[in-house]
Amino acid sequence: MRVIDIIDKKRLGGEHSDEEIHFLVRNFAEGGIPDYQMAAWLMAVVWRGLSPAETFSLTGAMVASGDTLDLSDVGRPTVDKHSTGGVGDKTTLAVVPILAAGGVAVAKMSGRGLGHTGGTLDKLESIPGTRTFLEVAEILRQVKDVGACLCAQTPALVPADQKMYALRDATSTVQSLPLIAASIMSKKIAGGGKSIVLDVKVGSGAFMETIEDARALARLMVDIGKAYDRRVVAVLTDMNVPLGFNVGNSVEIREVVALLKNEAGGERRLRELVVYLCGVAFELAGLAASVDAGRSVAESLIASGEAFEMLCKIIQAQGGDPDYLRHTEKQAAAGVTLDIQSPRGGSIRHIDASVIGLAAMRLGAGRETKDSVIDHSAGIVLRHTVGDVIAQDTTIATLYTATESAAHRVATEVAGAFEIVDGDVDQSPLVYETISG
Amino acid sequence: MRVIDIIDKKRLGGEHSDEEIHFLVRNFAEGGIPDYQMAAWLMAVVWRGLSPAETFSLTGAMVASGDTLDLSDVGRPTVDKHSTGGVGDKTTLAVVPILAAGGVAVAKMSGRGLGHTGGTLDKLESIPGTRTFLEVAEILRQVKDVGACLCAQTPALVPADQKMYALRDATSTVQSLPLIAASIMSKKIAGGGKSIVLDVKVGSGAFMETIEDARALARLMVDIGKAYDRRVVAVLTDMNVPLGFNVGNSVEIREVVALLKNEAGGERRLRELVVYLCGVAFELAGLAASVDAGRSVAESLIASGEAFEMLCKIIQAQGGDPDYLRHTEKQAAAGVTLDIQSPRGGSIRHIDASVIGLAAMRLGAGRETKDSVIDHSAGIVLRHTVGDVIAQDTTIATLYTATESAAHRVATEVAGAFEIVDGDVDQSPLVYETISG
Repeated sequence: MRVIDIIDKKRLGGEHSDEEIHFLVRNFAEGGIPDYQMAAWLMAVVWRGLSPAETFSLTGAMVASGDTLDLSDVGRPTVDKHSTGGVGDKTTLAVVPILAAGGVAVAKMSGRGLGHTGGTLDKLESIPGTRTFLEVAEILRQVKDVGACLCAQTPALVPADQKMYALRDATSTVQSLPLIAASIMSKKIAGGGKSIVLDVKVGSGAFMETIEDARALARLMVDIGKAYDRRVVAVLTDMNVPLGFNVGNSVEIREVVALLKNEAGGERRLRELVVYLCGVAFELAGLAASVDAGRSVAESLIASGEAFEMLCKIIQAQGGDPDYLRHTEKQAAAGVTLDIQSPRGGSIRHIDASVIGLAAMRLGAGRETKDSVIDHSAGIVLRHTVGDVIAQDTTIATLYTATESAAHRVATEVAGAFEIVDGDVDQSPLVYETISG
Repeated sequence: MRVIDIIDKKRLGGEHSDEEIHFLVRNFAEGGIPDYQMAAWLMAVVWRGLSPAETFSLTGAMVASGDTLDLSDVGRPTVDKHSTGGVGDKTTLAVVPILAAGGVAVAKMSGRGLGHTGGTLDKLESIPGTRTFLEVAEILRQVKDVGACLCAQTPALVPADQKMYALRDATSTVQSLPLIAASIMSKKIAGGGKSIVLDVKVGSGAFMETIEDARALARLMVDIGKAYDRRVVAVLTDMNVPLGFNVGNSVEIREVVALLKNEAGGERRLRELVVYLCGVAFELAGLAASVDAGRSVAESLIASGEAFEMLCKIIQAQGGDPDYLRHTEKQAAAGVTLDIQSPRGGSIRHIDASVIGLAAMRLGAGRETKDSVIDHSAGIVLRHTVGDVIAQDTTIATLYTATESAAHRVATEVAGAFEIVDGDVDQSPLVYETISG
């Protein structure tokens, strides 16, 4: 078998055999295939696509490139969760402790943020002392002992994906549904969870901007899961508007704590989505008879404080200070705080997620390039959300950042992200649809 | 300017600016852009194509990556010639001495063969002592003193093309009209000839298998020439049938010598094409009032022996032994000779060029891979051509190779390359059409 023939076949629109894809991925991961040949193949894949069978093979070949987690002896149902990423999306930090408190084992591995979307790891690392790099043995022990972990993708799992993603990032070959699906699902399958809940974000603040693209990605991931004996449910959710009030790192931890402490005044859609995803997971895990029954379980675990205690336990197990969660007023304050006022009165019809995400990034909460250093205290707290009726000069958002100039640089665009109109406004749906095997 | 944005633009089907293409080619040639990014861009170009303006920019950027030949003080009209390559195509070896004998300066640089098509350099190197690697200064001196040279592409000219071609070869990105056109024309433009004759081969034995593809390539190359102030004529010629009787290296030199010595019995189409290309060149150079007048000039230079003497002078200037040309019976004999008989009588309707080319390669005359070593004495001599009426058991071809087993391995396919029918047959045209600015 020769790489050049494999590239040639895809260039001409042919379909690869399982053997060809395993040959390609194995040799690429081991360094036997140079980056330039893989780059040419990847661009040919962006062009010609991959069939479902090819995508299953690619996923399997990537899983085979490294270790897999064996969660079979944790003695509880195992669930994994993935979000395609959005602005203000801190659901993982709430969903994982709720599921663990409810008797589900969750070995959750996450990534860092890039561009306008935040990453769970960055948010976790805003909690002083928290280690996010856990070895495979530590992950297994913590999931067994505590119930869950919240850690970084270990390089022992799916090394082919790490190498391939870095190459895709440098060669403009990220945008391909089968490549995205295989990348996500190979990590979920290697992660050992028997059930998988996928939160596929749709809208201006997400990688998938149309419902059609999101649906195709969701369908493909569900089918990959089926091919590897996983129960998968994909939930298509709105990401035109930021999720929750807070966008950043420390500020998002604060919002998660308030939610798990069952405090009043939180943003409705965030809580609704967290509870919904937990409902789906509890049903998938066989711990609730329906999604609605699962939602009730989640609500009661929040109300009882068990979910919050579980978050503290997970953080403590990873070296973090739970006192920081119990007393969020101890968080390091940002250098500068700037309130943004509404230029007019009316009803808030829309808040543009991508504008808010980019503004938060420029305030220091995210990475413009992979080498950017994050300011954990930087971010944006929205004071109102879609549907609220406000008077002129109402504070609609507060910016947190290091310098006055940084704050003023984004003030106008943050104000401009709010669309304020006369009369009543419709609320866009939060969950568009649910796709399962 | 960032490479990733350039790749991204082409992936989405956008059009590059002249600056973008120069940035890309300059930095790739200098090593500032890694092969994997260039490979992704090349595959995106195979996918999305290049506009004429982009193709002109690419050609210019490749020319700018190295030296150019300045032929302005040779005191004669300058012509260059290129063939896209075919089976038995030895026209360069006849055309260049005819043109030089007629007062045209020709700095002809050629490549090696790969696969089923032969390379002029390999044929030249079958003449003992002939040096094909000439420095730029030697090329200029020889063109001035002798009238022409027949040498290898020097690495001083268009280094970006050498690097890019090697990458295209390894990444299945050779098949792209604009990339092929820019590669050929950048070398012709850097080569300094003011007029350029392009022989674009069409058919089963050529890279362009359809007249439409060949026409599009020819048109593009003529337009590139115009953009760089060159007079270009492209001639679309048949390559379904081998050109001439002889396919190999020593055997092709023998056929060229016989042609230039005006010996009887040569293959009609080879002589017709050589004379036609010379006619086009003499007209372009302003040394003949028409192509037909130019053809007469060529015929008289053959008849007078001046063309043959010029070939001897060129070879001698490059260290080769002209006695080898004057007495071709001195050529080293192949180890084994095997005559192939026709299995039936009738009229020869077709001889498949690609089958003959591949058989000659397997006899040792060509390269299966870039590292193959050529046996200069190996090859095939056809004893009859299209239109001939033969009896059963007539010898239709003779194989030359190193071992009996090598000869017998291809005997059946060589016999099968001949299509022999009852009744009269039509001869396919040699020159399909001529395209000029």
